[in-house]
Amino acid sequence: MGEPVDRGTDARVQRSKTLVLEETYRLLTQEGIGGVSIDEVSRRSGVSKTTIYRHWPSRSSLLIDACSKLGEPAPTPDTGSFKGDLAALAGYLGHGLRSARWAAALPSIIDAAERDPEVAQMHAQLQAGFRAPFLAVAERAMDRGEIARNTPTEEVVAKILGPLFYRRWFSKEAIDDRFVSSIVDSVVAGAARPPGSTGD
Amino acid sequence: MGEPVDRGTDARVQRSKTLVLEETYRLLTQEGIGGVSIDEVSRRSGVSKTTIYRHWPSRSSLLIDACSKLGEPAPTPDTGSFKGDLAALAGYLGHGLRSARWAAALPSIIDAAERDPEVAQMHAQLQAGFRAPFLAVAERAMDRGEIARNTPTEEVVAKILGPLFYRRWFSKEAIDDRFVSSIVDSVVAGAARPPGSTGD
Repeated sequence: MGEPVDRGTDARVQRSKTLVLEETYRLLTQEGIGGVSIDEVSRRSGVSKTTIYRHWPSRSSLLIDACSKLGEPAPTPDTGSFKGDLAALAGYLGHGLRSARWAAALPSIIDAAERDPEVAQMHAQLQAGFRAPFLAVAERAMDRGEIARNTPTEEVVAKILGPLFYRRWFSKEAIDDRFVSSIVDSVVAGAARPPGSTGD
Repeated sequence: MGEPVDRGTDARVQRSKTLVLEETYRLLTQEGIGGVSIDEVSRRSGVSKTTIYRHWPSRSSLLIDACSKLGEPAPTPDTGSFKGDLAALAGYLGHGLRSARWAAALPSIIDAAERDPEVAQMHAQLQAGFRAPFLAVAERAMDRGEIARNTPTEEVVAKILGPLFYRRWFSKEAIDDRFVSSIVDSVVAGAARPPGSTGD
């Protein structure tokens, strides 16, 4: 279908690009954003700098491509209740914060975002990815009448993601099931619609 | 009192040390921890590298001294109620997060703490400084019988600091009075002792 393609070349190019992205991601999670240079990526991947620059015109563009792997959004759960959905999301994220490699790399992005507008934009996209499934389950809870239409959903997100992020990167305390439940309980107690209320 | 001191020399030494710390702090808040080098501090402060190394044997020790200025703990309020104290603390911190120079520097410390044990230790001290006044007001609320003795105070701290930090460094949303009140309300509702309960 479409134009004829030199499939051998195409596969080789894909392989090089995959290698470069993998090594960039590895450097990023090991050393933070400051440790990623085209020189080092070229050395580790065995792909020449000329080839790397052909696909990514700048270090920033390569970083942004590699970082997009950091924020793979959580699958949106559908347990039938707002509380169940939030618990599933917070539990999934808590697991990622405890174990995933991106958790060690994210602070370097936050730091660079304080000074570099391109990184700041990428950081904003990653954060939108974290928020999206929470906003989706809140929307469904509104449709079911479980929470009021005017529930400040961005506050709900802050009250769940905030304590999780706090424990991972600030206090370094355990993110255990008890803690995750406690966060979700507080938020649901605050957002639940009192029976017979008309909060819309 | 005590031993005789060459006050002229003493004052000169103090002046140099103060200059070096100020320039280190300025670099830290402008460039992040990665931007602080002894070369650059010497250049900016006009204090020779030899003199700097006489007072701080390593870049780390200088950084740690400069960073200790970042975490000046909030004054512990005493409004007479747990809710009032938390609102005062969260309001104070929200103001600092919006305006203070340390807020731009902290992510670089968090990032470096992922890989450097000395920085990790300093980060832990800074975080303990953030927590201390919250634990103090919780202790007083227990003494008054306002909250149960077994209230998980570290969770209370996570539920207040977490959303504040989240908005400053992650979502970049506004930290306004409404948001601060909403966080405090949730936490107090969760921690308040039901009348007549025996939660001790």
